[in-house]
Amino acid sequence: MNETPPIRPGMIVGILGGGQLGRMLALAAAEMGLSCHVYCPDPKSPAFAVAAARTVAPYEDEAALAAFAGAVDVVTFEFENVPAETLAFLAGRAPVFPGARSLTIAQDRLFEKRLMEAEGIPTAPFAEVAKQADIYSAIARAGRPAILKTRRLGYDGKGQAVIRAGDDPVAAWRAIGEVPAILEAYVAFEREVSVVLARGRDGGIRAFDITENVHENGILATSTVPAWITPALADEALAIAGTIAVALDHVGVLAVEMFVLPEGAPRRLLVNEIAPRVHNSGHWTSDACLCSQFEQHIRAVAGWPLADPARHSDATMTNLIGDAVDAWPALAAEPGARLHLYGKAETRPGRKMGHVNRIAPRSDG
Amino acid sequence: MNETPPIRPGMIVGILGGGQLGRMLALAAAEMGLSCHVYCPDPKSPAFAVAAARTVAPYEDEAALAAFAGAVDVVTFEFENVPAETLAFLAGRAPVFPGARSLTIAQDRLFEKRLMEAEGIPTAPFAEVAKQADIYSAIARAGRPAILKTRRLGYDGKGQAVIRAGDDPVAAWRAIGEVPAILEAYVAFEREVSVVLARGRDGGIRAFDITENVHENGILATSTVPAWITPALADEALAIAGTIAVALDHVGVLAVEMFVLPEGAPRRLLVNEIAPRVHNSGHWTSDACLCSQFEQHIRAVAGWPLADPARHSDATMTNLIGDAVDAWPALAAEPGARLHLYGKAETRPGRKMGHVNRIAPRSDG
Repeated sequence: MNETPPIRPGMIVGILGGGQLGRMLALAAAEMGLSCHVYCPDPKSPAFAVAAARTVAPYEDEAALAAFAGAVDVVTFEFENVPAETLAFLAGRAPVFPGARSLTIAQDRLFEKRLMEAEGIPTAPFAEVAKQADIYSAIARAGRPAILKTRRLGYDGKGQAVIRAGDDPVAAWRAIGEVPAILEAYVAFEREVSVVLARGRDGGIRAFDITENVHENGILATSTVPAWITPALADEALAIAGTIAVALDHVGVLAVEMFVLPEGAPRRLLVNEIAPRVHNSGHWTSDACLCSQFEQHIRAVAGWPLADPARHSDATMTNLIGDAVDAWPALAAEPGARLHLYGKAETRPGRKMGHVNRIAPRSDG
Repeated sequence: MNETPPIRPGMIVGILGGGQLGRMLALAAAEMGLSCHVYCPDPKSPAFAVAAARTVAPYEDEAALAAFAGAVDVVTFEFENVPAETLAFLAGRAPVFPGARSLTIAQDRLFEKRLMEAEGIPTAPFAEVAKQADIYSAIARAGRPAILKTRRLGYDGKGQAVIRAGDDPVAAWRAIGEVPAILEAYVAFEREVSVVLARGRDGGIRAFDITENVHENGILATSTVPAWITPALADEALAIAGTIAVALDHVGVLAVEMFVLPEGAPRRLLVNEIAPRVHNSGHWTSDACLCSQFEQHIRAVAGWPLADPARHSDATMTNLIGDAVDAWPALAAEPGARLHLYGKAETRPGRKMGHVNRIAPRSDG
């Protein structure tokens, strides 16, 4: 598939998923002279407003998928919960990047952890919980506190339940819906970081600077560059993320979230989770780099050369979640801040409505 | 009209004109959570591909204009050759920024020059040429060489004829189509610069750094910041542009092109022409400022606070005209360069197909 000729200006990029990530991908593609066709079941998808063409249909609608594949020159996706069958169906009809392996592994926490094991990449201790009876042996392995997570379809803290000393493990099993899960040991981390990199069709890798992330209630709150991390740990983080990209034979942007453990821990970096796509912790790149993660992803899937990911400024990205977006007039007036709003009609608690990038001259020369 | 309430996220910006400027305005509006409706007679307009809604109709189609005005929350335009009657018709039905005065004056070279006279702003000597017989007295006033220019609808060097010593002035009159014109004295300038500023609905003005421009065959070739200009001349240029913005009661981005004359000239800055809109010589702002001229224009017409126009990098913008766009693969691979393509289906000689911004750390601290 990597022999596919590059996408030329005027050609059409098909994007599965019409949320804010799809919207920002479509905006980046437009700057490159490409046209976008967004496919999403939700007729209110914010990406539709900036796309030249749209398909509103379920991901299982083979007639709609076939028409979509016939109308575009390359297919990519904005999120990893597109059904694997959808991608397989499309892959027989159009070039698809990233490929099935990235999607299949990233949409299942157990597959993700097993890939890390196979590659010798440290993670928190974990155990599979396929049925209720597995919980006890899983706790024996992971200890307490631990977090029970659905294998699939969890994001922004959804599909998770904490099991602390004294908690009834069966209550946690019921809370996540009695579905296939994994139990992960709770990690007393010092900080969270992520690597957002891109891998081209030719296998070349370019990583943006490592970002330091703060989550609140399971949802990313802020991302800051430069991260507070030693050069040696930064190199290790980049090497880990690169190993994962190669193991997935990934093409496109890949985000790898990691925990940094306190000094003295045997391994100071543990991989928390991966996302085979543009990622919220890379939103700062839009205003602190010449090429954003969105353009870099389109470059990768289009077969263009990857851009220099150098950062010209320091940045802190703050998500605007739910009612926080009501502060937009003050944010629009704030010097050094750039406001990004997603065009979502309805504000709901926990919903990502926009973000603001606060930019400053580089502090680290 | 300036009592109009601000445009809120989710509201709709109507844009008259669907070329690359309309496209880049629509992209900027989308980043701000606004939706765009583009109105353009040409069904192949590149802005349509990034707009939520489109109207393909002549500018004289009152039914289409009325429907457009009813569908949007504010109207702006990407170019000054929208008929004044179109803007007047819309202004009775929706808020329109910039207003009729900016459009009327900027679309007529004679009105433009008379405004400068009234404001005490120096220009090249000029004279009206309403009919063939006027040419001789005009030459007596402006001297030779001089440039005969149509009052209306000229751009990128079109509608112009040079009259040198020995040339038959009547041939020039015929070359421009025997339409109302002005004759301008040829100016032996040292360099060309432009001021791109924005004026908000509240009258506040923010100017981007002065840009140095090079034209080839009457078409902008490159724009560079910082411009090679003394601080005193830069201040004078900013003051002149601000005076014009106020005189027009302009709202939105305004570009003022000026000639810098050699040292020793009685007045070193002459205004060449103005554009009541985003301008090719401001394209560098997309990659060298936190807020581009496109976002700044949308902010102004939406009634949002203007952004800080500070420049974080040096930049040179190079237009990709006609076949020059064929170099896109090399440009896409060039470190420090950001390629912008306009999604135009057909490459034609003299047609602006895209531009490239080459960015470097600030040389002037």
